[in-house]
Amino acid sequence: MADINARTESSDLPRGTAMTVTTGPIRGSRKIHVGPLKVAMREIMLDPSCGEAPLRVYDPSGPYTDAAATIDIAAGLPEIRSDWIRARGDVEEVDQREVRPEDNGLKGPDRSGGVEPFPNVRRRVLRAKPGANVSQMHYARRGIITPEMEYVAIRENVGRAELREKAARDGQDFGASIPDYVTPEFVRDEVARGRAIIPNNINHPESEPMAIGRNFLVKINANIGNSAVASDVAAEVDKLVWSIRWGADTVMDLSTGRNIHDTREWIMRNSPVPIGTVPIYQALEKVNGIAEDLTWEIFRDTLIEQAEQGVDYFTIHAGVRLAYIPMTAKRVTGIVSRGGSIMAKWCLSHHKESFLYERFEEICEIMKAYDVAFSLGDGLRPGSIADANDEAQFSELATLGELTQIAWKHDIQVMIEGPGHVPMHKIKLNMEKQLEACGEAPFYTLGPLTTDIAPGYDHITSGIGAAMIGWFGCAMLCYVTPKEHLGLPDRDDVKVGVVTYKLAAHAADLAKGHPAAQLRDDALSRARFEFRWRDQFNLSLDPDTAESYHDQTLPAEGAKTAHFCSMCGPKFCSMKITQEVRDFAAKQNAPADTFIAATSPDEAERGMADMKEKFRLSGSELYLPTS
Amino acid sequence: MADINARTESSDLPRGTAMTVTTGPIRGSRKIHVGPLKVAMREIMLDPSCGEAPLRVYDPSGPYTDAAATIDIAAGLPEIRSDWIRARGDVEEVDQREVRPEDNGLKGPDRSGGVEPFPNVRRRVLRAKPGANVSQMHYARRGIITPEMEYVAIRENVGRAELREKAARDGQDFGASIPDYVTPEFVRDEVARGRAIIPNNINHPESEPMAIGRNFLVKINANIGNSAVASDVAAEVDKLVWSIRWGADTVMDLSTGRNIHDTREWIMRNSPVPIGTVPIYQALEKVNGIAEDLTWEIFRDTLIEQAEQGVDYFTIHAGVRLAYIPMTAKRVTGIVSRGGSIMAKWCLSHHKESFLYERFEEICEIMKAYDVAFSLGDGLRPGSIADANDEAQFSELATLGELTQIAWKHDIQVMIEGPGHVPMHKIKLNMEKQLEACGEAPFYTLGPLTTDIAPGYDHITSGIGAAMIGWFGCAMLCYVTPKEHLGLPDRDDVKVGVVTYKLAAHAADLAKGHPAAQLRDDALSRARFEFRWRDQFNLSLDPDTAESYHDQTLPAEGAKTAHFCSMCGPKFCSMKITQEVRDFAAKQNAPADTFIAATSPDEAERGMADMKEKFRLSGSELYLPTS
Repeated sequence: MADINARTESSDLPRGTAMTVTTGPIRGSRKIHVGPLKVAMREIMLDPSCGEAPLRVYDPSGPYTDAAATIDIAAGLPEIRSDWIRARGDVEEVDQREVRPEDNGLKGPDRSGGVEPFPNVRRRVLRAKPGANVSQMHYARRGIITPEMEYVAIRENVGRAELREKAARDGQDFGASIPDYVTPEFVRDEVARGRAIIPNNINHPESEPMAIGRNFLVKINANIGNSAVASDVAAEVDKLVWSIRWGADTVMDLSTGRNIHDTREWIMRNSPVPIGTVPIYQALEKVNGIAEDLTWEIFRDTLIEQAEQGVDYFTIHAGVRLAYIPMTAKRVTGIVSRGGSIMAKWCLSHHKESFLYERFEEICEIMKAYDVAFSLGDGLRPGSIADANDEAQFSELATLGELTQIAWKHDIQVMIEGPGHVPMHKIKLNMEKQLEACGEAPFYTLGPLTTDIAPGYDHITSGIGAAMIGWFGCAMLCYVTPKEHLGLPDRDDVKVGVVTYKLAAHAADLAKGHPAAQLRDDALSRARFEFRWRDQFNLSLDPDTAESYHDQTLPAEGAKTAHFCSMCGPKFCSMKITQEVRDFAAKQNAPADTFIAATSPDEAERGMADMKEKFRLSGSELYLPTS
Repeated sequence: MADINARTESSDLPRGTAMTVTTGPIRGSRKIHVGPLKVAMREIMLDPSCGEAPLRVYDPSGPYTDAAATIDIAAGLPEIRSDWIRARGDVEEVDQREVRPEDNGLKGPDRSGGVEPFPNVRRRVLRAKPGANVSQMHYARRGIITPEMEYVAIRENVGRAELREKAARDGQDFGASIPDYVTPEFVRDEVARGRAIIPNNINHPESEPMAIGRNFLVKINANIGNSAVASDVAAEVDKLVWSIRWGADTVMDLSTGRNIHDTREWIMRNSPVPIGTVPIYQALEKVNGIAEDLTWEIFRDTLIEQAEQGVDYFTIHAGVRLAYIPMTAKRVTGIVSRGGSIMAKWCLSHHKESFLYERFEEICEIMKAYDVAFSLGDGLRPGSIADANDEAQFSELATLGELTQIAWKHDIQVMIEGPGHVPMHKIKLNMEKQLEACGEAPFYTLGPLTTDIAPGYDHITSGIGAAMIGWFGCAMLCYVTPKEHLGLPDRDDVKVGVVTYKLAAHAADLAKGHPAAQLRDDALSRARFEFRWRDQFNLSLDPDTAESYHDQTLPAEGAKTAHFCSMCGPKFCSMKITQEVRDFAAKQNAPADTFIAATSPDEAERGMADMKEKFRLSGSELYLPTS
C-alpha cells in the first residue's frame, strides 16, 4: 500500500512555485474503477477473519487517492469526459478570451507569493455551436442518456445490488421518490424534470460526473478561496484536494482578492469534482470593490471568462430585487450574503431593478453554451435566528421559483440556495416552501445553523440543521467550518468541516431510507462488536483520527487486536460479556428464539416461567456439557 | 478581573498529592448571586457603546468561577444547603459506615499515584429519621415548597422578566407545558407530578439545586471517572471542575478501577452540581469483576456507602429482566450497556430474575432515607443503528415505566435513561413511547448517535440526535465526547463534549420556545452585526476558543475593534454594506416602512413603481442632503 497521506509536489512547475497536495489511498482502502465507464469508487478492505467482502463506498476524491495514478499539478488531471463531449457533435473549438490584467484584480496579479499562472493553460476552449444547447437537461429532455448520466447511475448504486437480497427499506422520505435501484433512465428522467442536476461544464472535462437531487444520495460542498487579507493560490489548491479526499462532492472557489483568475485556473485543471463560483465577486474586483460601478457588460464578460475556464455552476443572486431590500432594514443582522449585499447596494444606488434579474434570459444564453448550472443565490438569507423565515427571505424564494421556470424554459439546470440561520422548528418549512416555490429543483443549503451562540463550533450548530434539512429533502449541504464567523479555515478546519457534513449527509441518507446507506454502519458496528479495531478505523469517515484517538490511551500495537478497550479495561467489557451471554444462550436447551417470541412484560414473564421449568427438568445443571 | 482560566492548587493537601483545578471567571463575565437564597448566575458584560445591560445566563459552574471565592480542594465547598436540610427536622446524624479496603477495589486503594483519601472526611452523616421520607417529591406532594424549589425557580427564570414585555412566544413544544414565568409553586407541582426531579442528596449539601424536567431548560450531563487502564483521582477532580465551567448541569462519576470510594469522596465534596453514579460498577469491583458473584447484600451495602457520601442519583438497571436478555442475541451489537451486561450475565448465570428488579421496593427504602433519585438505566439500549427501537429496548422501557410507578408510590424521584444509537427518523418514537410508558417522568438520553460511521466525531453524530430529542421533550442530554468508542476523554475532549451538548440543549430550548432562550442569540447577533468582536466572543459558549480562532487570522489588537473580518477583508463586507443600505434607506424620502408592506413579487413590483415615481419627483438626486 502506498504511503498514508503522502504529500506530492509537482516537479514541472516554474521556479519559485511551491505547490503540494496530499496523495495516496485513504488508510485501509483502495481505489477501483467499475465498468467500461471506469466509475471511480473506493473499497474498504476488511480483516480476512470476518469473512466479509470489501465494502464499496462512494468516492469523490479523484485520482489523488489512486495508488496507480501519477499526479502532476502543473499538468492538470486527465480529461476523462473529453471524448464524450466531442462525440455529441454540438460543440466547436474557439479561441479563449484573452486574459486581462484586471481578471486577477484591478491591480493585476500579485506574484509576490511565488505562484505563477497555471503553466499548462489551454488557448482553445469549447462552446456550443451556434443555436445549440449543450446542457445535460437539454439532452435529458430529448430522451438522450449521456455517458454522464450512466456514470451517475453506477456511482449512486454503490452497495444496492447486495442489499436487494438482504434488507427491507427503512426510513421516512417526506415525499421523495428514491428508487430501489438507480438506472441511467431514472437519472435522465430526474434531470429532465429538473429534480436533479449534473453540473459538468464542457470546459471541465476533468470532472467525474455526479448528481445533486433529492432522490440521490445527499451531497456536500466545501468552500475554499483566498481573500484580500489571507491565503494564497498554493494553499487553495491544497485545500481543494484535501477537501475531496475527505468527501466533498463539489467545491466552491469563493476567492475575492487578487490572482482570482489564476487561482481558478489551477483549481479547475486539478479538480475531479464540479467547481462552483460566485461570479459577482470577481466582477466587483474588476471595478475596484465599488458595487455602484458594476455593469451588466462587466458581469457578462466575467461569466464568459469563467465559463470558458470550466466553472460548473454559478451562484447568481438574481432574486435580490429592489423592492425586497428595505424588508431587511429592521432585521437584527440585515443582509449577510456578500452577493446579496453587493446587489442590494447596486440596486439602491441606481434605484433600479437588479441587472441580474432583468438580464436573466441573457444569462441563460451563456449558461446553455457551456452547460453551466444555475445555483440561484439566496442573497437575503437570514444571518441570525431572529431573522429566520421572514418576509425578505421568502419573498426572494418566490422570485427564485419564478427564475427557475425561466431557466427550465431554456433547458438550463438549476439548484436553489437556502439559509443560513434557522432554529430547528423552522427548518421543515424552509424545505416545504422551497419544493413548492421552485418546482422540486434541488435545494442547496448552508447549514442551517440552529443557534447563534456558539462561534468556534458552528460546524456543529449547523451540522444539526444540515442533517435535518437533508432528511427533509435538501439535496446538497454546504459545509460550515469551526472558523465560521471568526476567520478563514485552514487545512484542519476544512477537514473537520467536510467530515462533519459527510456524517450529517449520511445521517440524512439513513433517515430517508436510502437503500444500502446502512451497510457501512452495520459493517462498522460488527467490527466494533468483534473488536476488529483496524476495520473499525478503516470503515470510519476519518480513519486517521479514529486510530490516533484510540492510540492516545492504548498505543501498543497489541491493543489493535485486544478484545477490550480503554474505556472499561480488560475485565469489564460489556461487549465481551454479551458474547458470553450469546455463548451461554447457545449452550442452553432453550434456543434464543424461544425467548425472542416474548413481546411484552407479561409474555416475558411467561417465557421466564417456561425457562425455569426447562432448567428444572434438565437437572438444574447451570452449565450443560457442550457436546 | 481575575486571571482567565487560572489554575488553583490546594495548599492543604497531604505530601505527594498534586491536585489542581481551573478557577477564575469565564472571560468577560462575572458571578452574581441573586436574592436572599443567593442563586448563582453569570453576567456577561457588554461594551458600553451598545447601551445594553449585561446579559444574565444560567450558570452551573459553582464558586470556581467566582472571583471572590476562595477555593480549597482539600476542604471542599461550603455547605450551602446544610441549614435548609436540618431545618426540616426530619433528619438525624449517624456514624458513617466504616470505609473498608474493598470499597476502593478488591485489592484496596492504590496510592502509587500519590493521591490520598480526602482529608476533610466527615465521620457523621445524615439520614432520615425512622419512618421519614426526605425526598423533594415527598415534600412536594405534601404541598411544601422547599428552598431547593425556590432556588430552582429563580434559576430557571433567567431573562424571563425582561422578555415578558418584549417578545411573543415562538416555538413548537410537542405537548410540553412551559410556563411564561417559573414560580416556586410551579416547580413544586412539577416535582409532585413526577415530571421533574431535583436531585439533591441530603449528604451533598454543597450542591446548588437544579431541576431536570421537560418544562424546564434542557440540561446536560458530563461523564467522568477513571478505569482500570487509565486516569487518576486528581485528573477526575480536575475534569469535574472543568466540565461544570463549560456548562455541565450534572456529572456522573463512572469510575471502575481502584480508589473508587476515595475518588468519589473528592468529587462529592468539591461538586456544586448533582453527582450521579452506577453503583453496580463498584459492587462488581468488590467481587473482583465476577458478575455471578454479585449479591443483593453487597449491592445494598454499596448503595448505603454511596448514599452516605452524598451521591444524588443512582443509575439502576432494574429493567434488565431475565426474559428480555435473549432478545438481544441476534442484535448486531448485543448488549452495550456495562450495567446491562453485568446484570444480564448475573441473571443467566443464576437463571434467576434480576435482584435489582425483585428488590426494587427495598431499594426505594434506601433512596427515600437520603433523597437519592432513581435514574432507571437502559441496560438494553441499542449500540448500533441496526438495533434501534427493537423489541429488547422497548420491552425494557415498559418495565422502567412499571418501576417508575413503584418508585412514585414511595415518593421517590425518578428519571429514565434512553438510547444510544438511533437514526433520525426513529428518534421521535423514543420520546413518545417514553412519555407514555413512564408517565412523563423526565427522559435522560445518551445522544442518540444518528450514524455509526464517524468514530472520532461521535460528539457530533450524537449532538444531532441530542438536539432533536431535546426539542421533542428530553429533559437531560448525556454528553458524548470525540473519544467515544475509542478511548478515555481527556480535558480537551471533556470541554468539546460539554460545549457541543450545551449548544444542542440550547438549540432545543430555542425550538421548544423557552421564553428568553433567544435573548443570548439575539445579543450575540447584534454584537456580530455591529462588529463588537469582544462582545461576540464573550457571549459565546466558549469565549476562549472564539477569540483564539479569530486571532489565528487577525491577531492584531486593532482587529478586535475593526469593522471587518478576515473572511471578506476591509473593502468587501456584507454587514458593512448592509449598514450603508440602512443609512441610504434612512436618507430616502420613502421610509423603509413603505417597502415593508410589499409581501409578494407582485406587490413588490408596485412598490418599485411607486419608488421610481418618488425618485423622479425628487429631481433624480441620488443622494439627497441629510438635512
